[in-house]
Amino acid sequence: MSNGGGGAGASSSTHLLDLLEEPIPGVGTYDDFHTIDWVREKCKDRERHRKINSKKKESAWEFTKSLYDAWSGWLVVTLTGLASGHTALHSLSVYHSVQFMEQDSTLRVFSTGRSGQWFNFLTCPANIFTGPGPGSYIMNYFMFTFWALSFAFLAVSLVKVFAPYACGSGIPEIKTILSGFIIRGYLGKWTLMIKTITLVLAVASGLSLGKEGPLVHVACCCGNIFSYLFPKYSKNEAKKREVLSAASAAGVSVAFGAPIGGVLFSLEEVSYYFPLKTLWRSFFAALVAAFVLRSINPFGNSRLVLFYVEYHTPWYLFELFPFILLGVFGGLWGAFFIRANIAWCRRRKSTRFGKYPVLEVITVAAITAIVAFPNPYTRQNTSELIKELFTDCGPLESSQLCQYRSQMNGSKAYSEGSDAAAAPGVYSAMWQLSLALVFKIIMTIFTFGLKVPSGLFIPSMAIGAIAGRIVGIAVEQLAYYHHDWFLFREWCEVGADCITPGLYAMVGAAACLGGVTRMTVSLVVIVFELTGGLEYIVPLMAAVMTSKWVGDAFGREGIYEAHIRLNGYPFLDAKEEFTHTTLAREVMRPRRNNPPLAVLTQDDMTLAELQNIISQTSCNGFPVIVSKESQRLVGFALRRDITIYCPYIAHDILKISIWKMSVLCKHAKNALVNVSTSFCLSFYRRLLGIITKKDILRHMAQMANQDPESIMFN
Amino acid sequence: MSNGGGGAGASSSTHLLDLLEEPIPGVGTYDDFHTIDWVREKCKDRERHRKINSKKKESAWEFTKSLYDAWSGWLVVTLTGLASGHTALHSLSVYHSVQFMEQDSTLRVFSTGRSGQWFNFLTCPANIFTGPGPGSYIMNYFMFTFWALSFAFLAVSLVKVFAPYACGSGIPEIKTILSGFIIRGYLGKWTLMIKTITLVLAVASGLSLGKEGPLVHVACCCGNIFSYLFPKYSKNEAKKREVLSAASAAGVSVAFGAPIGGVLFSLEEVSYYFPLKTLWRSFFAALVAAFVLRSINPFGNSRLVLFYVEYHTPWYLFELFPFILLGVFGGLWGAFFIRANIAWCRRRKSTRFGKYPVLEVITVAAITAIVAFPNPYTRQNTSELIKELFTDCGPLESSQLCQYRSQMNGSKAYSEGSDAAAAPGVYSAMWQLSLALVFKIIMTIFTFGLKVPSGLFIPSMAIGAIAGRIVGIAVEQLAYYHHDWFLFREWCEVGADCITPGLYAMVGAAACLGGVTRMTVSLVVIVFELTGGLEYIVPLMAAVMTSKWVGDAFGREGIYEAHIRLNGYPFLDAKEEFTHTTLAREVMRPRRNNPPLAVLTQDDMTLAELQNIISQTSCNGFPVIVSKESQRLVGFALRRDITIYCPYIAHDILKISIWKMSVLCKHAKNALVNVSTSFCLSFYRRLLGIITKKDILRHMAQMANQDPESIMFN
Repeated sequence: MSNGGGGAGASSSTHLLDLLEEPIPGVGTYDDFHTIDWVREKCKDRERHRKINSKKKESAWEFTKSLYDAWSGWLVVTLTGLASGHTALHSLSVYHSVQFMEQDSTLRVFSTGRSGQWFNFLTCPANIFTGPGPGSYIMNYFMFTFWALSFAFLAVSLVKVFAPYACGSGIPEIKTILSGFIIRGYLGKWTLMIKTITLVLAVASGLSLGKEGPLVHVACCCGNIFSYLFPKYSKNEAKKREVLSAASAAGVSVAFGAPIGGVLFSLEEVSYYFPLKTLWRSFFAALVAAFVLRSINPFGNSRLVLFYVEYHTPWYLFELFPFILLGVFGGLWGAFFIRANIAWCRRRKSTRFGKYPVLEVITVAAITAIVAFPNPYTRQNTSELIKELFTDCGPLESSQLCQYRSQMNGSKAYSEGSDAAAAPGVYSAMWQLSLALVFKIIMTIFTFGLKVPSGLFIPSMAIGAIAGRIVGIAVEQLAYYHHDWFLFREWCEVGADCITPGLYAMVGAAACLGGVTRMTVSLVVIVFELTGGLEYIVPLMAAVMTSKWVGDAFGREGIYEAHIRLNGYPFLDAKEEFTHTTLAREVMRPRRNNPPLAVLTQDDMTLAELQNIISQTSCNGFPVIVSKESQRLVGFALRRDITIYCPYIAHDILKISIWKMSVLCKHAKNALVNVSTSFCLSFYRRLLGIITKKDILRHMAQMANQDPESIMFN
Repeated sequence: MSNGGGGAGASSSTHLLDLLEEPIPGVGTYDDFHTIDWVREKCKDRERHRKINSKKKESAWEFTKSLYDAWSGWLVVTLTGLASGHTALHSLSVYHSVQFMEQDSTLRVFSTGRSGQWFNFLTCPANIFTGPGPGSYIMNYFMFTFWALSFAFLAVSLVKVFAPYACGSGIPEIKTILSGFIIRGYLGKWTLMIKTITLVLAVASGLSLGKEGPLVHVACCCGNIFSYLFPKYSKNEAKKREVLSAASAAGVSVAFGAPIGGVLFSLEEVSYYFPLKTLWRSFFAALVAAFVLRSINPFGNSRLVLFYVEYHTPWYLFELFPFILLGVFGGLWGAFFIRANIAWCRRRKSTRFGKYPVLEVITVAAITAIVAFPNPYTRQNTSELIKELFTDCGPLESSQLCQYRSQMNGSKAYSEGSDAAAAPGVYSAMWQLSLALVFKIIMTIFTFGLKVPSGLFIPSMAIGAIAGRIVGIAVEQLAYYHHDWFLFREWCEVGADCITPGLYAMVGAAACLGGVTRMTVSLVVIVFELTGGLEYIVPLMAAVMTSKWVGDAFGREGIYEAHIRLNGYPFLDAKEEFTHTTLAREVMRPRRNNPPLAVLTQDDMTLAELQNIISQTSCNGFPVIVSKESQRLVGFALRRDITIYCPYIAHDILKISIWKMSVLCKHAKNALVNVSTSFCLSFYRRLLGIITKKDILRHMAQMANQDPESIMFN
């Protein structure tokens, strides 16, 4: 005690290096691009909880604090839900004003005296070539391209200058973060602001992308920012991830108006650690977010539903065959898209070409605008295209897709024994749709991965919806002209319309989205919350399962996992099963003939020894053992914590107090499959070696004949 | 080798007691009312998988076998889904024929020349007192009671004689089985057959019970029976539980026509171990089951939806207040019901009264029938009552609940500026509904737990729907008479109907079901799949969350957990958090001053020693250590396996080969909370002691001041 050392609470002969308490700022946090220690975070939280519980009977203040602590989980998800809802609304209203500006300026420039002409242009494609004369058409074409390029340029510049993390869909990174990785600033306020703005610009530029994935990223930013208000969450990376899981549910909830789909998306697709408590919180966050959307009523019809459909006829058993075919198409498209997109992104990463993101975005936007304009189905907004494709042909429908003979004859009684033979309008629509399909397929491959916010949900759904509508019309015409076939005879009366092409579009959209993302349950729930088509669960399920099976046959990774691997994030998929029979000993470090593992001993280490180990190795952490003789493991100390502590230590002999850690013992001969499923450090009573997540990922890459050095981070 | 011992593969000096292989029938299975060893089952499965994988390149036959093995999971869930769908349909058609018989016989006895009179009776309550004269009314009353008693007697007798396990809802037991408990015959063919038949009889007897919970039990029976076709599942209790999880999803899918709700029910409510693979399989089983139902079209309208509703008006923000009130009611009702029902069931267990199940069922059925008949709302089938309460009043609705002035005046334009003032019919309906509410509340308490198949979903929903409809009509009349109040002025135009009482019934039903079962997400999904009311997710969510919070304030257990505890099943709820700070050492056996733990040593045990240990102890299993000196743990051997092996052992020195076991090390000083969350045997390198599930449950019971001996099984 007489010693004037700087360490607080140092005893006379030894210094307690207490890694459990955090008296020094910075201890217990992690470096950027490092993986968190789940066991340690959970122990810290349990310790904190116990402390609050034991204190709460001491005073009214402590009791209030404990109440605040208990309710802070609900508070933070409420705030996150509110913020996500408002951000989505904000981006929606910005989008509308941008669109208005675009239309308005075009009108002023080329005013022909009729107001709303541009609008007529967009909604009534038949007038395009015959309408306001060829000169005006060309000028409109020019303005369309001009606006697309301006918006794209603005979006990519903002992203490049202010928030490089705002690009892409963000879902691969969120998956990685939820699995325990640290990416500083990825969920920060700059990313939030810039992504909200540039998202709108990117959509308005007409690129083949959607706003749904980025909205999930935006919601996670809200969750992350609000978690800083509550020490329970801001100081504990594991607890913070519970908030982020709930936030991603809120994100899907506002993106699609699908709260339950959001919860399932969070569970199935993005989350890593999802206890039932998080299920309830996610549910609540999604509820609040949906409520904000509902109370402000963006779609103008008091429904949460984006593409509300109502079909007149049920579906029949024989239709399962085309639905399953659409599932096969979705699976094939998904597998093809993943390969092509990853190949293109890899080229962008590895060649000089990736150095010019602005040029690339502008080129893609220009090609998109130039090719898109002549075809009415590619010119219009993708969400509206999907809505049109989903909609059933009723007597009031004026779309080209609904030009059947019955309507040509002026008969309004479409639904009662109509003449379902296709008129020329349908055939020209089919032709245009086929071109739109090819265009969307090609452009989406080059668009996803650009340095602007870009979601995949809407383009994938559009591709599926186009393919589905084409198949649907084909089946419909087949049933009309061959109504005496066995299949049709049994179900379709002559003259009655028994096939709903809109339903095929819906099934196709689900199948393509399933093929790309490999979601199942959450996808079906999202699609039926999206469309309100509750009776069509069975067709949806059949198509989505087929799509997943077909896609999995070509490679088990979805697009998000593929991008995670491309970026080299240390992500260990809990869903994937590792089938090799490698022994832990083969992966474990130190390998044979390597120098021994750097370890700390609990009671008898000098400061000099500690600093020596720190300076001579580059490991991120060190196992702590009782003594060199017994080699009994007591815990694991991070380099970062030790480095922060060292200046405060004055004494020679250290006593390292480590968080109580439940070490999973693994026999060194155990197959790697164990290690990989329940990931842990590998010890067998006596410390033999260590296996990190990176070791396993490297080994898995080696087994798959990939470059093990593609795993970049620790 | 010269030795003529009976042991196969015995070496000359030691016998290999190989507990990993199963050459002797019975080894590797479990006794009735025992808990399975999850670690062992998983190791066995991994071993099996590795063996098949390594063999599959040897021959075409082995390759076929490996394919069969890989697909058997999908096969078994497909079969389970098909069987569940067909069983549900079968019970539905039996129910219809029973009802027909009942009506037909009544008609023949009291025929007044008009066919369908009995049916008129049931659907048109206004005619009851004025219709076919007082004599006929009394005879009908008598026949109603007579049929109720006959069906109830038949049901309880069949259950008592053939399959005692067929009683109750079965969900508490399924939860226990899924958590790793063995109850032989609970999911067997007799239970399946008898439960399918008696379920119909119990519903037909008019008792206050539903068929939904038992249908989940029936589906699990199907799953269990089919799992015997596949060695992968029949020989592995852990894998079998994956099939049972999928089966319970299929059960809810057919019970409510809610496939996605079924998957979530399985995840949230019943399952213990639910990997993502099981999510997909459950999804598929639910799909197939729904498909069977869909293709046979039981509700006659090509919809999977049982109580399909379509409301004319959206809901308004101020209505959240009554919705939350309904949530509070649901939570209070749930807490009250659980306490009252458990108190009554405990009395049945502990007094002589429980010895006469047949008498009890008949008494309850008689009281139910006698009290139910005069009130039209209790006389009719509960599902139909719920449907009527959910339905919005349209111009075509002839129900007493819809007698508004506008309809009395003969005006058909109900929805356009109608006169929403209630006519006398509505007031008398309110009065009858209040009586029905009290009746249902009291009878359900005494009915759940009777020795007949009895579900809780439909009675709970009926109670909530009645309460909700009453609140809805009250709010509606308030809005009509006080349309100048601030709240109503803003949203309701004068003359327009802005309140939908049917929606209140739906919200009330969800709230009450939530209060009883404490489900959240799965409940909301089930209700909206049930009703098709997709736009009403936010009110549903608000009511269900409120109901859960209010209910949890009175006790965290749902009705199923309460029944599990009442029956003393060894169920450790993964959702519950254990807040005591007991140390593992305090719970661990052997306690201080107790005799030491009976252990086996791996290499140097004689047969005599082994038999000695077996005969002198009553433990179900013994830790296996390397030697008495090192006390290093290698595994755990079950008494049952050793007993089966012993007759085959001829040599003196045994070598015990144990399945490779990953033992979770726990420091003896660790708080019990660790042990309870990640349940494991407690060892700290050196074997110190053992903690079984029963020890923890006993300790938890002690902490809650309950009788620790109420945990009956091992």
